Amino acid sequence: MKPQFAPTPPEGVNIVPFVSVDHMMKLVLAVGVERFMAELAECLREDFARWALFEKAPRYASHSREGVIELMPASDGTSFGFKYVNGHPKNTKEGLQTVTAFGILSDVYTGYPVLLTEMTFLTALRTAATSALAAKCLAPKPARTMAIIGNGAQAEFQALAFKEIVGVDRLRLFDIDPYATRKCLTNLRGKGFHIATCASPEEAVEGAEIVTTVTADKQYATILTDNMVGAGIHINAIGGDCPGKTELHKDILMRSDIYVEYEPQTRIEGEIQQLPHDHPVTELWKVIADEGPGRQSADQITLFDSVGFAIEDFSALRYVKRLLRTYPLYDDLDMLADPDEPRDLYGMLMRSAG
Amino acid sequence: MKPQFAPTPPEGVNIVPFVSVDHMMKLVLAVGVERFMAELAECLREDFARWALFEKAPRYASHSREGVIELMPASDGTSFGFKYVNGHPKNTKEGLQTVTAFGILSDVYTGYPVLLTEMTFLTALRTAATSALAAKCLAPKPARTMAIIGNGAQAEFQALAFKEIVGVDRLRLFDIDPYATRKCLTNLRGKGFHIATCASPEEAVEGAEIVTTVTADKQYATILTDNMVGAGIHINAIGGDCPGKTELHKDILMRSDIYVEYEPQTRIEGEIQQLPHDHPVTELWKVIADEGPGRQSADQITLFDSVGFAIEDFSALRYVKRLLRTYPLYDDLDMLADPDEPRDLYGMLMRSAG
Repeated sequence: MKPQFAPTPPEGVNIVPFVSVDHMMKLVLAVGVERFMAELAECLREDFARWALFEKAPRYASHSREGVIELMPASDGTSFGFKYVNGHPKNTKEGLQTVTAFGILSDVYTGYPVLLTEMTFLTALRTAATSALAAKCLAPKPARTMAIIGNGAQAEFQALAFKEIVGVDRLRLFDIDPYATRKCLTNLRGKGFHIATCASPEEAVEGAEIVTTVTADKQYATILTDNMVGAGIHINAIGGDCPGKTELHKDILMRSDIYVEYEPQTRIEGEIQQLPHDHPVTELWKVIADEGPGRQSADQITLFDSVGFAIEDFSALRYVKRLLRTYPLYDDLDMLADPDEPRDLYGMLMRSAG
Repeated sequence: MKPQFAPTPPEGVNIVPFVSVDHMMKLVLAVGVERFMAELAECLREDFARWALFEKAPRYASHSREGVIELMPASDGTSFGFKYVNGHPKNTKEGLQTVTAFGILSDVYTGYPVLLTEMTFLTALRTAATSALAAKCLAPKPARTMAIIGNGAQAEFQALAFKEIVGVDRLRLFDIDPYATRKCLTNLRGKGFHIATCASPEEAVEGAEIVTTVTADKQYATILTDNMVGAGIHINAIGGDCPGKTELHKDILMRSDIYVEYEPQTRIEGEIQQLPHDHPVTELWKVIADEGPGRQSADQITLFDSVGFAIEDFSALRYVKRLLRTYPLYDDLDMLADPDEPRDLYGMLMRSAG
């Protein structure tokens, strides 16, 4: 039955490498957390520098009373990536993760997926690497002291990325829940930080060149008020990332030079949802590609209003795909039907019975 | 470290059942191809009947010179499903599938995925089941003879779905490539059909109450011209499913009562892209929910302008999820990070080293 003109498919093209949670942890530990984020930041830098050529869209978001499920696609014309990610603040109370994620990288030429990976860890790593990359461009120099307000799942990754990429070695921690701060303190012991645990956000920001806000409430919150923010600092605002979820008082925004990932998405999801739609912001890629202004004076307040964008996940996916060449920490998934003759799907099914 | 208020996560919630291609084939064979499509058509009927409550959006499509990669999400408020699917007509020449797909079903309440499955086979099955469901509502009765123009990967599934669901037992096959027709004929031997192989589309449509067009060219093609289509038939137009890809002459559309899945998407992708944007069409769910007219006279031409919609994939995903209770044909994937304490993702990573 097989006609002469049907070529043999490339070996194994129907098999998709799958990086499980267990394999991702082994991969990160094999590379080292800090080196992983530094190399990932380099991939991010490359992709921010060629930002204009990416196919971009605001994420697809399916909102419910309990949370949101999102699909975040991006393509550079050669590879196509997307992340599935949920955000359910109430999950924590049920022993579940607020955010879980997985992602796919595909070959644009064939349309075939070439990687499936867990992305709960990978998102934590890319978020921190992106924050540190932005701070390297925007924070005052040197910047050795960082306040971290919100000491949940993202806090340690932020700390380590900023140490490796920016040179931060003094942390000032605050969380409304002292348990979270203790957890963070314990986890970062022996990592080369001087760490102060603080009783209030006001105390945390004292003397910090960088202030990272990374809280998780799904509501308008005011983690930082205007009087807490002095001249010359860099604010790394991570926690406000969906409609109705912000962390900074509007007056801080008015005093800051604001940097965003992808303006159309950040207008909806970021701190700047509090501002008029024509308030000027700069997309971060412009600073990285030398097409826009970074920090220009010592007393300027720079603000990275980060919501997380699909290109960052794309960078993370292609970095992991590259790592698998050196570290074969994956399983093979039989995910794509691969009949000998593409038009004979039904025949493949029937022959599988025999 | 673990605080008292962190409850234990539900057992196994971080593990996602994965239906591989091999398991899908075993599942379909265990249920039986015809019964599988009949039960799936019943799930489709249920979901079409409650169409209005679904969250709907035109698919996200990433086009390239070689093809398209699409994400097709849908939610009923309890479950969220999406399909990844590519369409690369040139793949066939390279021994690859034109269309491959996989899908995810998630729990809206937690945001956690509950099923990952191959969907190359499943899409073939749901496309045929949807066609047959539409024909059961719209075709003249009885309809025993169907022309199938285009005898590729979808043809046998169409034939078997129409036999099981509509009562078709006479087929008239045509393809520009005689190999495809021979393949189809061989595969359908012993399935209870009387089959005529035809030398032209004109010959194929002779005496057919139902005409199925399911060709694969990515260009404006005219598979059916106006003079070929007599009164009283039902046209099941499957192949035209993206901008620039149509199968029917415009004059046929002008003489037909046109039924679509989701009007905003079909205006872009379906046969009706050839028509003015206000040309009247009826969404199929209205016929199924008794909210719109079906066939009203014996000489009416009904046309199902099918492009495939996300809710159909949703129906297929929930059907497969249900089947897994009876047929445990899946693997467990460690896809979601599940720390003992949700805020201690970094601690989970560190402890995994020990």
